[in-house]
Amino acid sequence: MGKVYLVGAGPGAVDLMTLRGARILASADIVFYDALVGNELLSLAPRAIHVPVGKRSGIASTDQRIINRCLVTAARHHQCVVRLKGGDPMVFGRAQEELDALSAAGIDTEVVPGITTALAASAQVKIALTRRGTSRSIIFATPAIGDGEADSDWAAAIKSQSTVALYMGLNQAERLVQSMKFHGVPGNTPVLVMENVSTPDARQMVTTLSELPEANNWRHDGPVMVLIGRVFDRMVQTEAVELLEALPG
Amino acid sequence: MGKVYLVGAGPGAVDLMTLRGARILASADIVFYDALVGNELLSLAPRAIHVPVGKRSGIASTDQRIINRCLVTAARHHQCVVRLKGGDPMVFGRAQEELDALSAAGIDTEVVPGITTALAASAQVKIALTRRGTSRSIIFATPAIGDGEADSDWAAAIKSQSTVALYMGLNQAERLVQSMKFHGVPGNTPVLVMENVSTPDARQMVTTLSELPEANNWRHDGPVMVLIGRVFDRMVQTEAVELLEALPG
Repeated sequence: MGKVYLVGAGPGAVDLMTLRGARILASADIVFYDALVGNELLSLAPRAIHVPVGKRSGIASTDQRIINRCLVTAARHHQCVVRLKGGDPMVFGRAQEELDALSAAGIDTEVVPGITTALAASAQVKIALTRRGTSRSIIFATPAIGDGEADSDWAAAIKSQSTVALYMGLNQAERLVQSMKFHGVPGNTPVLVMENVSTPDARQMVTTLSELPEANNWRHDGPVMVLIGRVFDRMVQTEAVELLEALPG
Repeated sequence: MGKVYLVGAGPGAVDLMTLRGARILASADIVFYDALVGNELLSLAPRAIHVPVGKRSGIASTDQRIINRCLVTAARHHQCVVRLKGGDPMVFGRAQEELDALSAAGIDTEVVPGITTALAASAQVKIALTRRGTSRSIIFATPAIGDGEADSDWAAAIKSQSTVALYMGLNQAERLVQSMKFHGVPGNTPVLVMENVSTPDARQMVTTLSELPEANNWRHDGPVMVLIGRVFDRMVQTEAVELLEALPG
């Protein structure tokens, strides 16, 4: 019987993988990887069979139960099985379902943490997610459409000095904004939208809660991260100054 | 003029450093490191001068302004200056103050994210921090003594299916418990206390909010992380079963 490693691939850049993750990939026999894991990352596992099991919102996905069964079967035929998951495996990754299925089948597991995208986003723009007097906590969430209770939590958190990192698509932006405003979050609260964090295709847009719905027109193909909070105030101000300076005359 | 890299050291284990962080350390001329960064991690920077600038609660610490000035001065004498910070540099690390001081002095900076301790803790116990139907978000916080507003936020979050990770000492446990109960968090909510996450000295204790004050008697020398939330229910149950099985007769 082999062992299954749930390895965090990090946000996208190959060298944001951990040393431990890279070592395990180097000796992997088979790697089951998410849609967001790129070819460069897979090159860290040259000996392994590479099996895509992508799940991306809006795109036909592999059923979670099928993934679980693949992992169990693979562990019966290979020594070193890797489940490579974007970001950190334990954050919004349905890792528990995989771990439980493997445990039920008596298969040994190990989890290797990864850099979660919000932290790589913070490093990229050089704005810390906590700051004395501005933000004393961080919330990682996925917006659940129509979930008023969750919305009210985030709204309360933003109002009382938290930074919120939403692992989401921009298609939910309009509903989110309406809900935040309903719960009393000021319209001038800064919002940072980041696509393809840590990769050469990285793009970002700084806006405010009031102006976020216009971002619906912002075309994007890659994974998007939305960060909300007062720590980003200085980015909004910098952009405003740059716009003024660019005006003719 | 040199460049200053703020590098996340991760939770403690050397091989939870990123490939990028390790590469930068290998060519570093001087490394300013926190009290929680061990000798093994420093061995990744064999060419560098190693300067401790430890800040630990309760122990005499180096003033933040002095650290800022050290970094600026070092960048004027060395090509590659590393500020090595435990966990991720942008989470509770006062990184913004260092970045701002360097920026004001016209010094180039780069931030390399690290594995934040809460994610390594989750990997270690193999319990995901989010799970469908149990936890839909994660909050990273430091308890601010007597900060009723923050307490009320966490309490609301725990009640509405969030996992809370507190970067704190156990000496604040009693006050925290009283406050959580006052805000209506059930006493049987699971609490996981972890010391020296990811290192050979790692220790953990599973308890509940009601029983956490007894943990004050739990002696610890290393950094402690407190995780609260329903995702840890199964750990409390497992421990209860083990205790029953250990009873004589």
